[in-house]
Amino acid sequence: MPPKPEILVSEVGPRDGLQSVQATMPTGYKFRWLDALVAAGLREIEVCSFVPPRLMPQMADAAEVVRHALTHPGLTVLALVPNAKGAEAALRAGVHKLTIPVSASHAHSLANVRKTPDQMVEVVRAIARLRDDIAPGVQIEAGISTAFGCTLQGEVPEDEVIRLAVACVAAGAEEAGLSDTTGMANPAQVRRLFSRLRAELGERAGSAHMHNTRGLGLANCLAAWDVGVRSFDGSLGGLGGCPHAPGASGNVVTEDLVFMFEAMGVRTGVNLEKLIAAREPLKAGLPGEPLYGMTPEAGLPLGWQQEARHV
Amino acid sequence: MPPKPEILVSEVGPRDGLQSVQATMPTGYKFRWLDALVAAGLREIEVCSFVPPRLMPQMADAAEVVRHALTHPGLTVLALVPNAKGAEAALRAGVHKLTIPVSASHAHSLANVRKTPDQMVEVVRAIARLRDDIAPGVQIEAGISTAFGCTLQGEVPEDEVIRLAVACVAAGAEEAGLSDTTGMANPAQVRRLFSRLRAELGERAGSAHMHNTRGLGLANCLAAWDVGVRSFDGSLGGLGGCPHAPGASGNVVTEDLVFMFEAMGVRTGVNLEKLIAAREPLKAGLPGEPLYGMTPEAGLPLGWQQEARHV
Repeated sequence: MPPKPEILVSEVGPRDGLQSVQATMPTGYKFRWLDALVAAGLREIEVCSFVPPRLMPQMADAAEVVRHALTHPGLTVLALVPNAKGAEAALRAGVHKLTIPVSASHAHSLANVRKTPDQMVEVVRAIARLRDDIAPGVQIEAGISTAFGCTLQGEVPEDEVIRLAVACVAAGAEEAGLSDTTGMANPAQVRRLFSRLRAELGERAGSAHMHNTRGLGLANCLAAWDVGVRSFDGSLGGLGGCPHAPGASGNVVTEDLVFMFEAMGVRTGVNLEKLIAAREPLKAGLPGEPLYGMTPEAGLPLGWQQEARHV
Repeated sequence: MPPKPEILVSEVGPRDGLQSVQATMPTGYKFRWLDALVAAGLREIEVCSFVPPRLMPQMADAAEVVRHALTHPGLTVLALVPNAKGAEAALRAGVHKLTIPVSASHAHSLANVRKTPDQMVEVVRAIARLRDDIAPGVQIEAGISTAFGCTLQGEVPEDEVIRLAVACVAAGAEEAGLSDTTGMANPAQVRRLFSRLRAELGERAGSAHMHNTRGLGLANCLAAWDVGVRSFDGSLGGLGGCPHAPGASGNVVTEDLVFMFEAMGVRTGVNLEKLIAAREPLKAGLPGEPLYGMTPEAGLPLGWQQEARHV
């Protein structure tokens, strides 16, 4: 038996990444990519979002993708849902976990979903009731977005971020995590906010979803780790996450995230060589799409023996 | 009076960057670039190395560059010297500080300077004597390179790194810093090694010279900050530092480094807008050379007011 992982790396590329690019990855490639991610040891994958296909044709095969993902024993199959209708479709498809984005920025929330943050808390409550009715074993995570700043309103009050996270859990979510949607977080802020979140919610404090917009993605993950966060989102090849400029990737690159923790001796359960190999089906299914990642480009260091680091 | 900076950002681009590229920046552009760096608030710049021009034509104008740099009051003018001959030329040119690279990897040291690490400690001793004779006010910093791993020999024993740093200070260097020459450092290792260095050397523990080869540059700087390091090397545009692959920059990007600390509320004394503007003379003097940096590409966040952060 390999030693138990110390952190959970949650891969968001198949949802967050694929819905951020123009092209639609053919369903067969999605299957191959998911298989490669699972083969690398990923234990939780956000495989799709349940949204109207006319708004997001990249996700039209969501139910089919969930069905395929469910063939992998031990994998937690996660889907993003913005509303009760999407949640019902996801629950009927058989997902293990729902993630609901709740923006802490009033301006961003209105622009994005035409609801205030508090109206989104009511959406969480409605989805939790639905879940209790039709699939009581399913987990719900609220992802508090723009938690570290907003490109529309600038600063987002920290009290408001924490208040919303607590409200989402009170409304029926099992956990609430914090997302640096806009790439504005810094390590001092990450430590403050996740410390407060953990003080309020304990084990219901959810994952850190960091962006690398200004190069601070891994530093922010390190800062979150330092204050006890043990669940981190990453996107293979840094795909998605609304890059602001060419070369400026959005989401934290899963490969670099895993490299950092494994190099530190923190077990991720993910095999880095196989994770880098999982870029191949991604490239094949999205030809010409730029991928990021320093570790894949530089290669693993001389003498790198991942297993040996954990003996 | 602006508040006193809390960290020292030491710019190494004019030396480390310019000697890593094929092209030679014309002397006039070097002057313009230095002027722009000083205008941004940088207080220490490694302006050149004193090495034989036939080996490194990019540095043939070293004495002239030092002379120009010395026209900026308050600027610490630093030069790299690999041996006593280079040190003598640098001292006669009037530099304020010498940096001497001492590799902790036996294999790298032999390959790079045909001397063992202990023979390099003797070089430090000889240079310190020379300094005492001809320019007693000049500071000497030993930069322990390959301190976190080596592309030739793999692991570098931590005891050996600390032993060499202590030996360099005993031989007459005012300080010894640690360099992640190969981009193999991780935050746990950075904390261990700099904690030991500071325990051994106190205020004589020198700067953190981190690379971004595998994307961990800023995370490693954060880790060093956490254990008390207050001096950091950076290279404007990430120029230099032996990139292993296209897109995989070597040196930590000064712009991103300053952004991280300023965003955290740590005063650097550097104005970020002016620092980003200092890329212009660099681009003009090295046309076509790729520059890195997430912050310059993404732009500063909405509502960024650097001065206001320090009130």
